[in-house]
Amino acid sequence: MRVILDGKELDIRAIWLEDRDRGIVKMIDQRVLPWKLDFFVSRSSEDTAMAIERMIVRGAPTIGVTGAYGVYQAVLESINEREFIEVLEGKVKRIQQTRPTAVNLFNVTEKMFLEIKKRYEGGYSSREIIEVAYDLAERIADKEVEANRKIGEYGEKLIRDGSSILTHCNAGALAAVDIGTALAPIRTAYKKGKKLVVYVDETRPWLQGARLTAWELEMEGIPYYLISDNAAGYYMWRGEIDLVIVGADRITRGGDIANKIGTYKLAVVANENGIPFYVAAPLSTFDMRIQAGSEIPIEERSSDEILYVRGYDDDLMEVRRVLVSLKEAKVRNPVFDITPSKYVTGIITEFGVLKSERDIEEALSRYRIDHD
Amino acid sequence: MRVILDGKELDIRAIWLEDRDRGIVKMIDQRVLPWKLDFFVSRSSEDTAMAIERMIVRGAPTIGVTGAYGVYQAVLESINEREFIEVLEGKVKRIQQTRPTAVNLFNVTEKMFLEIKKRYEGGYSSREIIEVAYDLAERIADKEVEANRKIGEYGEKLIRDGSSILTHCNAGALAAVDIGTALAPIRTAYKKGKKLVVYVDETRPWLQGARLTAWELEMEGIPYYLISDNAAGYYMWRGEIDLVIVGADRITRGGDIANKIGTYKLAVVANENGIPFYVAAPLSTFDMRIQAGSEIPIEERSSDEILYVRGYDDDLMEVRRVLVSLKEAKVRNPVFDITPSKYVTGIITEFGVLKSERDIEEALSRYRIDHD
Repeated sequence: MRVILDGKELDIRAIWLEDRDRGIVKMIDQRVLPWKLDFFVSRSSEDTAMAIERMIVRGAPTIGVTGAYGVYQAVLESINEREFIEVLEGKVKRIQQTRPTAVNLFNVTEKMFLEIKKRYEGGYSSREIIEVAYDLAERIADKEVEANRKIGEYGEKLIRDGSSILTHCNAGALAAVDIGTALAPIRTAYKKGKKLVVYVDETRPWLQGARLTAWELEMEGIPYYLISDNAAGYYMWRGEIDLVIVGADRITRGGDIANKIGTYKLAVVANENGIPFYVAAPLSTFDMRIQAGSEIPIEERSSDEILYVRGYDDDLMEVRRVLVSLKEAKVRNPVFDITPSKYVTGIITEFGVLKSERDIEEALSRYRIDHD
Repeated sequence: MRVILDGKELDIRAIWLEDRDRGIVKMIDQRVLPWKLDFFVSRSSEDTAMAIERMIVRGAPTIGVTGAYGVYQAVLESINEREFIEVLEGKVKRIQQTRPTAVNLFNVTEKMFLEIKKRYEGGYSSREIIEVAYDLAERIADKEVEANRKIGEYGEKLIRDGSSILTHCNAGALAAVDIGTALAPIRTAYKKGKKLVVYVDETRPWLQGARLTAWELEMEGIPYYLISDNAAGYYMWRGEIDLVIVGADRITRGGDIANKIGTYKLAVVANENGIPFYVAAPLSTFDMRIQAGSEIPIEERSSDEILYVRGYDDDLMEVRRVLVSLKEAKVRNPVFDITPSKYVTGIITEFGVLKSERDIEEALSRYRIDHD
């Protein structure tokens, strides 16, 4: 993604392996954007687990890739242990348990762990195992970016010249290593010269839209309006929205979508107004173990995310938080919701736009072959 | 309403005439709740107009009553002018133009102005005109409170023991002089001993739910959960919401509702899930001049309400604002939306629960007789 750092234009990813030998991973600190472009340096698999937990990085594909780098770090840390596989498994579990809803994290780390275990049991040397872990992690990262490029190509065809597109949360380069999922078709259409404007939901409580999506679009020069989450329905009712594109944190075999809290309401209102509602996500987001969205665990995060809003204090020139209710207010804070498949016009993936359960099955079988 | 001030329990209104002779009006400053219970003292009709404009007071019925006291102040200020009616008319127009969406403000101030004009042209003395203006203003305030009491009685019957009720924005005592509109049935049901819990939408951008509704419920000891606006759909989908009650800023002859931005989305999602969606509003909120909601002007407020969040900085112990996006972000900030009548189960008024256009016409005709 295009970023401006100290006046210089750079093309970077949301996360990358900075030092292969020492297992140092670097990532954009998404907690302080857009006010500061800071980087978090992870020196261990525990640092990386914590970075996911504390939302230094977020977004299902980015979380998946972060997990993959974490597993690579874990391999470096435990390769000389007597009980290598047991120690590694513990570290992998620690990473997997940081956040429950996005399935990429589990899919990617489990796959890596099983591959490594197979080689270890097959008598591979330490050096070879490290090499395998490194290749897997980098391949997973590259595959995500390549998937996004293809999502951009397939999705771009759905955007007519002159469109207004509503998006929720941040399903951009920050959320998906590079390019983005929901933002991929938008970036591609814009680069092809199509006129468009993006309506960006601010996305309480964590304000991913106001902070991250607005920042990415600003960096690219793509026109947008930032709106309160409450205003999205009004613009749909007024006929000002031509299509909705959002990301996903987990998609079931039946096509139900877990995504950022508020997605469900958007889907119902889009449906009511005859507005196409698309989900953009790589195949790594699918969970073929389950059929119905109601089986997906929904993470509830701290009350503080509702009671306090973090932002930049202009006068003090620092990031601070302000209380927006009573300190003693009772809060509920689910951070994802489920959108049943009936409200979803199509799922834009690297294998094309999926519109039925059969489409999903077929794409997944091609994906598996591709991955084996 | 019940408030605690310096450790003492008081029963006060959102606004009242503090000094009849000098035309001093006192009101709770709703910008700094719940962190401070401060009062704004208005010494002129211009102060009062500004208090509405800057949202020191808000909520359709409270705005209406504030306007009525403003007209009383305007009478005191201009009664000795040669061109009394012209000067008064200018001041009334100034008050009417402060906020465009809530119709109570126009209804109430226009009614007062016409009554005063009639008496003036009928040769009433200055003292008599002041007396008339005073009586009208106080009667308007008392009528709102009495309407709310009745809304509470009618609405309470709709709440079953053990209900979960979702509300949006603040349609409480602060918004409606005392008791509240949407909160009236809830207060009444709670006082009758019904078990209930209120899901309170935080209501971006101005956070009326997080700041004002949570505070009112806390003061009364009524159980509630504060949630992000985005979470409301999730709880409806989960079957955790039994009914929705919101207020209104303007209601058309056809039963379309202008209310706080976000109301429309709630109504569509409630409808989709078979959850009753009620609007609680006094007859003063109806605008019989128009049929369709699309004719209601929708106020767009400053970008700053989206770019910044005001709150209480715990460490500095003061109310501050923090930037939540890029300063240069392009923003749209409509603060009301339109809910078509087809999504509304019923309108809870002081004349009962209205369910059709005919019900509305009949109630309005009784209301007019009652007011003449």
